[in-house]
Amino acid sequence: MNNPLISTKIDQLKSGLRVVGTESIAAIESFGRVTAQNINAFRDSPSTDVSAMDGYAVRLSDMDGNVLPVTGTATAGSAPLQLPPKSAIRVFTGGPVPPQAEAVIQREDCQESTFQVKILVPKESIALGQNIRRQGENVRAGATVTQTGSLLSACPFAGAMTFLSTTAIEVFKKVRIGIINTGDELIEFGQPIESWQIRDSNGPFLESSLAIHPWVHTERSTVSDNRDRTEHAIRNNLSQCDVLLLTGGVSMGDTDYVPDSIRSAGGKVVFHRIAIRPGRPILGATGPEGQLILGLPGNPLSVAVTFRRYAMELIRHVAGFARFEPVPLMQLDTSDTKISDLTWFRLVSLRDDGRLSLVSSQGSGDIASLIQSDGFVEIPPNSQATGTRSFYAW
Amino acid sequence: MNNPLISTKIDQLKSGLRVVGTESIAAIESFGRVTAQNINAFRDSPSTDVSAMDGYAVRLSDMDGNVLPVTGTATAGSAPLQLPPKSAIRVFTGGPVPPQAEAVIQREDCQESTFQVKILVPKESIALGQNIRRQGENVRAGATVTQTGSLLSACPFAGAMTFLSTTAIEVFKKVRIGIINTGDELIEFGQPIESWQIRDSNGPFLESSLAIHPWVHTERSTVSDNRDRTEHAIRNNLSQCDVLLLTGGVSMGDTDYVPDSIRSAGGKVVFHRIAIRPGRPILGATGPEGQLILGLPGNPLSVAVTFRRYAMELIRHVAGFARFEPVPLMQLDTSDTKISDLTWFRLVSLRDDGRLSLVSSQGSGDIASLIQSDGFVEIPPNSQATGTRSFYAW
Repeated sequence: MNNPLISTKIDQLKSGLRVVGTESIAAIESFGRVTAQNINAFRDSPSTDVSAMDGYAVRLSDMDGNVLPVTGTATAGSAPLQLPPKSAIRVFTGGPVPPQAEAVIQREDCQESTFQVKILVPKESIALGQNIRRQGENVRAGATVTQTGSLLSACPFAGAMTFLSTTAIEVFKKVRIGIINTGDELIEFGQPIESWQIRDSNGPFLESSLAIHPWVHTERSTVSDNRDRTEHAIRNNLSQCDVLLLTGGVSMGDTDYVPDSIRSAGGKVVFHRIAIRPGRPILGATGPEGQLILGLPGNPLSVAVTFRRYAMELIRHVAGFARFEPVPLMQLDTSDTKISDLTWFRLVSLRDDGRLSLVSSQGSGDIASLIQSDGFVEIPPNSQATGTRSFYAW
Repeated sequence: MNNPLISTKIDQLKSGLRVVGTESIAAIESFGRVTAQNINAFRDSPSTDVSAMDGYAVRLSDMDGNVLPVTGTATAGSAPLQLPPKSAIRVFTGGPVPPQAEAVIQREDCQESTFQVKILVPKESIALGQNIRRQGENVRAGATVTQTGSLLSACPFAGAMTFLSTTAIEVFKKVRIGIINTGDELIEFGQPIESWQIRDSNGPFLESSLAIHPWVHTERSTVSDNRDRTEHAIRNNLSQCDVLLLTGGVSMGDTDYVPDSIRSAGGKVVFHRIAIRPGRPILGATGPEGQLILGLPGNPLSVAVTFRRYAMELIRHVAGFARFEPVPLMQLDTSDTKISDLTWFRLVSLRDDGRLSLVSSQGSGDIASLIQSDGFVEIPPNSQATGTRSFYAW
């Protein structure tokens, strides 16, 4: 069970957020976008009766064992033919079945020659409609195949290409996400570094985690631990973004300027600290225009877990998704009996046998353990890890 | 259990394939690529002793209850300070701990004033090394954090940004994948269409399924059911691609030109038809230079399932992946008792509660059922659906 106290805070934050607007784009460019309209089938599917097999289209009344003349061939993509009485039409899989046909006899049950066919199976074994896929049996014209607020991932996108009646589609605008990494200790990749400084991993993690979503646009910047610069960066981002993610500077320490700076920039803090491990200092706020603001703690594991567990859910809401992302329940078995009085997100790897294993970690700064993991499970307070657990894959 | 006969065929095909070459690229551009080198930590992590808390760095021998002068402040990103005897250094989380310090006392256990601090906890309760993250405790310099043949998804990419000693990285070249959709009945989206024609959904499905992988490059074309044109298209693709995916035309029918065309173009057929539903007519072959050639059956569900189940495994091999993609095992419970004598891939949706449900389908042409699904499970021959099943998410 997820912790209801935490869900309440997340829901409270969600209720203050502004969902992005919509726009009309070319449907062919809509892969990976979020629908802002229902997709209704522009015609029946199949759109005519088609054959499920290679064989011969016949009337049942002609199934008296006689040889039938073959009066035509219906390949996939050809126009339907008429079936004269006492004759057969040769049909290929996907080819249109003549309107008069009552069954398709598969080739294997026929003795074929160029101009005629002999049906080898007894009349009694042939069912009305056999091997015919009837017009509309999958979908009726006008039926909704994709609801508004859906991600056009590969299958629904292929469906849109099949069923849309228009060449344009209404989608939610891309979510503009600002990322601000705070911390005097952070050095960008490729720059000279001292032993007491650290390479910034949070920026690359967040940017790349979001880059796989075509419905997102990100901008990233880095700010030193300075009150004015932090507030300025927050204001600047809020003027351009729907979502603002910050890392670091969110605890109670003297150099933690994020909470105050958010308030000064017009943000309304909805929660600060939740009973989770790692990631406890997380801060959730709304901007002056209903923007989502999340202050994530600075340690790499805290960022990764709170981003995946909370930020993505909230960002999906802002993006127009109608549905929560369902998270698979999986069985975790381990001899590890540790417990925490917090909701504990523990790193796991997905083994070659398809089962989960705990990944040991030295703590929230241990990036090496993060690399070894495929995601994490959510362990309720005061519970051991073994059990049926929500598996959040990275 | 996966069907061992099918695995044997796939392994046989795999053994004849050429893995793509490697190239050196800017590491900062390597997100989503496949490593062709180990990534070894260029320094210890942490790279110096750092504090896990906001507090005061002290010697244990000074813990006699006296007030200690505070001789400096170590913020994250500042150079380490020296700790004179009988004094304390104020440290922030992530800040460097003086080499002489033996413990960090958290702020909450101190009475603080501007120039001095009184430690409130008894000496006996303070452990050596308390709240100090020791240099190298996560990773030792030189240790491998990511093996060759790994995907640089978000966590390993962030790890690369943390641990790489160079600004360039050796990766496998992008896999060049040609997609050929065959079928006279296929009409591209946006073109006028008759009732006996169908919109091509396989091209959009394959293109978009592959588009999410930064380690792939795709080119797509459509060919009518014509022997010469099919062979020409195959030859043309083989001259430029590492992988060739075809849809349709792979059965035994008279208009199924794909198997013969592959042979004429120099392909060596390794298998044709495997005991699966849907997708039985699937053909696997190798090209003259060890290219992967897969002829997928033309129905949308057959394409989706065989692509996800077999093509992706083989393409990952060509791409340089060292590891199979692990597929999560999940419990499926259903009252549906149908069985098949084939390995049966059945569509499922992931419900809001994190469990799987079967999605009913009218057959392999039923795109609407595909859209409703989140993936499929693999049911062994002659088995009911209920059980612990491999869940292939789209």
